[in-house]
Amino acid sequence: MDRVVVALGGNALLRQGAEDTFEEMYRSARSAAERVADIAAAGWEVVVTHGNGPQVGRILLQQEAAREVVHPMPLDVCGALSQGQIGYLLQVTIGDVFFERGMERPVCTVLTLTRVRPDDPAFREPAKFVGPFYEEEEAERLEAERGYTMKADPHGGWRRVVPSPSPYSIVETPIVARLVADGAIVIASGGGGIPVVEEGPRLIGKEGVVDKDLAAAILAHEVGAQVLLILTDVKKVQRGYGSLMPEDIDAMTVSEAKALMKRGEFGAGSMGPKVQAALNFLAGGGERAVIADLEDGPAALAGEGGSTILPG
Amino acid sequence: MDRVVVALGGNALLRQGAEDTFEEMYRSARSAAERVADIAAAGWEVVVTHGNGPQVGRILLQQEAAREVVHPMPLDVCGALSQGQIGYLLQVTIGDVFFERGMERPVCTVLTLTRVRPDDPAFREPAKFVGPFYEEEEAERLEAERGYTMKADPHGGWRRVVPSPSPYSIVETPIVARLVADGAIVIASGGGGIPVVEEGPRLIGKEGVVDKDLAAAILAHEVGAQVLLILTDVKKVQRGYGSLMPEDIDAMTVSEAKALMKRGEFGAGSMGPKVQAALNFLAGGGERAVIADLEDGPAALAGEGGSTILPG
Repeated sequence: MDRVVVALGGNALLRQGAEDTFEEMYRSARSAAERVADIAAAGWEVVVTHGNGPQVGRILLQQEAAREVVHPMPLDVCGALSQGQIGYLLQVTIGDVFFERGMERPVCTVLTLTRVRPDDPAFREPAKFVGPFYEEEEAERLEAERGYTMKADPHGGWRRVVPSPSPYSIVETPIVARLVADGAIVIASGGGGIPVVEEGPRLIGKEGVVDKDLAAAILAHEVGAQVLLILTDVKKVQRGYGSLMPEDIDAMTVSEAKALMKRGEFGAGSMGPKVQAALNFLAGGGERAVIADLEDGPAALAGEGGSTILPG
Repeated sequence: MDRVVVALGGNALLRQGAEDTFEEMYRSARSAAERVADIAAAGWEVVVTHGNGPQVGRILLQQEAAREVVHPMPLDVCGALSQGQIGYLLQVTIGDVFFERGMERPVCTVLTLTRVRPDDPAFREPAKFVGPFYEEEEAERLEAERGYTMKADPHGGWRRVVPSPSPYSIVETPIVARLVADGAIVIASGGGGIPVVEEGPRLIGKEGVVDKDLAAAILAHEVGAQVLLILTDVKKVQRGYGSLMPEDIDAMTVSEAKALMKRGEFGAGSMGPKVQAALNFLAGGGERAVIADLEDGPAALAGEGGSTILPG
C-alpha cells in the first residue's frame, strides 16, 4: 500500500478571522478530517502532520495573563501542550468522519520530538515571532528580566523572537512507521515537533519553532512515504509571485523548481518553505511532492489539481 | 516477557508544596523516571500512566486569567493539553535516565481517550472539584452564565464540580499493546484519559475527569499486563485508616480486601479508589496488584515492600 504524509496548514485548524472557540476549531478540523478520510478511502496509508502557530500563540497569551499565579512553561512545553490539544481535535474529527463513512481505521496521536543541530545558525539569530505584542518599554524589560530576544514586528509593536532551526531527524519515526504500517492513521510531528538537540546521549528541549513542512519532509522520508502532500489555502504554486501576472504551476521538476526558487519567484514568506520542503523530500528519494489547497487535496494526490513536483 | 502498567500519582510530577516551575516539575519527574528505568531494567515491558490534577488546575487558571482575549477550551481539551505537557516531561526524563544507563528502549506518548457510559450516574451528580476558587456571588454568576455546577469546597470558597464517570474501555489499547510488545516504554492514559461516550458510532468528549487508577486498571487488563503497580506517597495500604493504631498490610487476597473495604478501613478519599482499581484489575484476570511508595516501586514489584493484592 502506498504511503503519504499529509501536512495540514494552520488554516486547516483555525481559519483566518474565525473565532477561536472550540466549536469553530472543531468545524475547521472537520473539513481537514473529511479530506484525510478521502485519502485513506483511496487506499493510502496516512500520516497527518499539522501546524500549531495560532494555538501556541494563544497558550502564550494565557500563560502571560496568569503569570502572577502560575509559572509559565518554556516554549518547548507549550509545543507539547499544543500537540495534545490539536492532536485530540484532529483525532476526534477524523474518527467521527471515519465512523460516519463506515471506515474502520484506528486513529492515534504520537507526541513528537524533532532533532535539530546545536550549532544551527538559527540559534544565534532568533527570527521567528511568537506570542503577545508589547510596547517598546515593556519589551526592554522582558529582555532584561527573562533573557528574551525582542524585535519590532512588521505588524507593529514588539514581540519575542525565537530560533527556527532546521530539522534533520524525527525522534519518533520508528513508532510512527510501525503504527502506520499496521493501518493506523497517525497524527505526528505536530507544529514541526518539539525541537531537541542531542547533548551527549541526552535530548534537550529547546525554546524554538520548527517549520512544520520541513519537519514533514523529514518524517515522510524516514517513514518511506512515496508522496509528501502539503495542504494550504492556495490552489497552486505560482511563478512570479507578487507580480502583476503570476502564473499557476501544474507540475515542475526539481531542477525547474530550484531555478525558480533561486530567482525568488515563489516569495520568501509562505510558499518558499513549502517548495523547499518538497525539494528536500525528493532529494531524499521521495517519488512525488504535491502542494495544493486543502479542498483539492485528495484530487491533487490522484494527479488532478494542485502543483506537483517530480524528481529530475 | 512480563508486562506491568505503572500508575504514577500526581505527587510523582509535582510534589506537595513544591514550586510549579518547569525545573521543579522536571526534578520530580526525574525521580519517577529513575524508578521506571529500574523496572524496565529488571526485564519488564512497561506502560506508564499518570495523574494530571495539578496540571489541569493550572491550565484552568491560565484560561480564566486570559478569557477576555482567548476563548477558554472545554475540560476535555484541557485534559488533552495536559497529556501533551506531562507526556513530554515524562518522555524526556525517562529518555534521559535510559541514555545515562546505556539502555536502549524507545519511549513514546500516546494521546488517550477513555470510554465512559452516557448513563453513568456521575453525569447526574457532578462531584469532582476542578479549577479556581470563587466567592459565592461569582459562583452563582458562573452557574447562570456558563452552565457550570458550582459547590462549596470543604477547603473554603466555591469551585466548579464535574462528573467523574467510571471508565470501561480505553480507545487506544490496540495502539498501546502493539508498541509495548515492540519493546517501547509507552506513556498513555494520562489523567485517566479524556472521557468520551459513544453516540451512535461517534466518540463525544465529555467535560469530566476519569480516576487515573481506575483507568489504569482497565488499560492493564486490556493490554494483558500481569501486574498493575500503583505508585503513590505512602509505604503501604493500612487497615484502620484514621484510627489510633493503623496496621500496615503486606499482602491480602481479593476477598480480604473486599471485607476491609466494606468496613471502610481504607478511607474513602485516597486509598479506597486505589484498592478498588486493584480489585477491578484482579477481577478481570490480572495476576497481582501492588500499591507502594514511588521510591519502593521496583522492589515492591519484585515482592519486597508495598502492599500486594492477590486473587482469592
